[in-house]
Amino acid sequence: MADDSKRQKHWLGVDLGGTKILAAVFDDRLQRLARAKAEVRATEGADAVINRIVDCAREAAAKAEVGWKQIQGVGVGAPSPIDEKTGRVIYAPNLDWTDLPLQDILRKRLNAPVFVGNDCNLATLGVHEVEYGAKPRNLLAIYPGTGIGGGLIVNGGLVNGFNGGAGEFGHMTLNYGGPSGIDKIPGSLESVAGRAAIAARIRRDVANGQSTLLTELAGPDLKEIKSNHLRKAIARGDTYVECVVREAAGWVGAAIASLINVVNPEIVVVGGGMIEQMEDLILPILRAKAKEYIHPGVRKGIDIVASKLADDAGIVGAAVFARRAVVGK
Amino acid sequence: MADDSKRQKHWLGVDLGGTKILAAVFDDRLQRLARAKAEVRATEGADAVINRIVDCAREAAAKAEVGWKQIQGVGVGAPSPIDEKTGRVIYAPNLDWTDLPLQDILRKRLNAPVFVGNDCNLATLGVHEVEYGAKPRNLLAIYPGTGIGGGLIVNGGLVNGFNGGAGEFGHMTLNYGGPSGIDKIPGSLESVAGRAAIAARIRRDVANGQSTLLTELAGPDLKEIKSNHLRKAIARGDTYVECVVREAAGWVGAAIASLINVVNPEIVVVGGGMIEQMEDLILPILRAKAKEYIHPGVRKGIDIVASKLADDAGIVGAAVFARRAVVGK
Repeated sequence: MADDSKRQKHWLGVDLGGTKILAAVFDDRLQRLARAKAEVRATEGADAVINRIVDCAREAAAKAEVGWKQIQGVGVGAPSPIDEKTGRVIYAPNLDWTDLPLQDILRKRLNAPVFVGNDCNLATLGVHEVEYGAKPRNLLAIYPGTGIGGGLIVNGGLVNGFNGGAGEFGHMTLNYGGPSGIDKIPGSLESVAGRAAIAARIRRDVANGQSTLLTELAGPDLKEIKSNHLRKAIARGDTYVECVVREAAGWVGAAIASLINVVNPEIVVVGGGMIEQMEDLILPILRAKAKEYIHPGVRKGIDIVASKLADDAGIVGAAVFARRAVVGK
Repeated sequence: MADDSKRQKHWLGVDLGGTKILAAVFDDRLQRLARAKAEVRATEGADAVINRIVDCAREAAAKAEVGWKQIQGVGVGAPSPIDEKTGRVIYAPNLDWTDLPLQDILRKRLNAPVFVGNDCNLATLGVHEVEYGAKPRNLLAIYPGTGIGGGLIVNGGLVNGFNGGAGEFGHMTLNYGGPSGIDKIPGSLESVAGRAAIAARIRRDVANGQSTLLTELAGPDLKEIKSNHLRKAIARGDTYVECVVREAAGWVGAAIASLINVVNPEIVVVGGGMIEQMEDLILPILRAKAKEYIHPGVRKGIDIVASKLADDAGIVGAAVFARRAVVGK
């Protein structure tokens, strides 16, 4: 048995976010064997971040007791459009990286076949393959967080797009002519419903005299308002915060409806911290708003559901991405 | 030569719109041999419309001097989401049809392999195959008219979606919380930038005292304002009409940007009467607005161009659709 397992194929998935790096080793049935975690600390520069990716990947392999030669491929999800042919990071504002040949660099550093893709696209691949057994021909995933990303499976395949930028749902215009948010696009979904936009609005309202439990939960300066702060405030009866979250969910619901009108998937999966913390509040709003905004001809049988994979979507999706690149499935 | 041509494969394409039926016969290189045209007159009921489709198809074949047995397949584009497996028309408000088995009916009536698809999707297939030689892996087409339809080619294939409703770009929300238009979806693209919305706005403004050359060009009641009326008014210096068209084009440009952020095609093709009549005015606005609203990471090298196929896109696309269904390419 032990010998058999050593001859098995293994895959390593890395999820590089704006603040943390996750790496995990999976066996060929995509069972997770071990996981490692590190901070990104982007301000220290690309070299330092890449060193931490390498260390984190090797730590996951060591924890899994899998020799490096048993790793058939490494998938890496990065928060940027990715050039499909070269695995270059085109533009990652969270990391302050522009046109970085991450795939080439990691292939040399890890001495393994490395494949870099967009983080949200790979998470969507993970949801499609692991949570839904690769069955839906058309699936859409959306991840409301600080920004709002997503991914698309169309006709059974992941959509990368011409410049590797497919699935950038946060930049859709829903409030044409309105002010812009962190993505600098006027009236974008992120500018009204991303967590950064929600936090900015709350700080503005508080400066104008609004009282909220968040000044107690997240600190009086409200510098960092996390999803669990929002959840706790609502649970303790803060109707102002509930109203703000409901409004943001309405925008996301209308965006999901727009996306259904555009690509008409059979299933829409939502994930990310906001959903995980407040699924009971947000999911019904998404469903109601989507119903209102989807064209009647395409409405039938489409479901909006929350992913159960949570943080694992990114790492398992990266492993699936590497496996598809190496063995073609 | 004559005998050879009789043994050649031929394809018949039908474009069923809200007001007119176009049918044309194509040879195997997709050269158009003959075309026929009929009115829809939807108010006379589905049977009467289907009779006219059948007559129009047979007239095109007769004009082309192609025997019916030489027709290898008939493609039909209809203004509705279409069930991919059965070719049923799901919901066509323009024709007042719901769940009509058009493909089955036409197979019996025409005694030929008939394949029904969505009109705008098939037009997009025509643009992709004939105008662009099937080269772009990812292409998006949008047709602003009375309503606003479109189609998507992703990873080289036409996107139909789960309920046959992919490409319904007119129902995207750009003005969340705003009033609804003919599609009854609040703040949809159609509700602000479709020709029906433009006409309604002009009638409202005129009722409120706005003067415009359109009362002369389209008649004092402004019941039917066509694209060429708008063009003529602008050419004669009607700055009010120019302002209205510019505004509508701005909305369409932002919608195109949203779509680029979502599916990231390498080329966006625009078509339809509004564009044909006012390309010089509209196209630069679409390009400028799209640039403003596309995320910088996905902007590079994407072009927005006007289709040269005009009315032919629908019929040739329908022929391509039939050919792919029969011979698999």
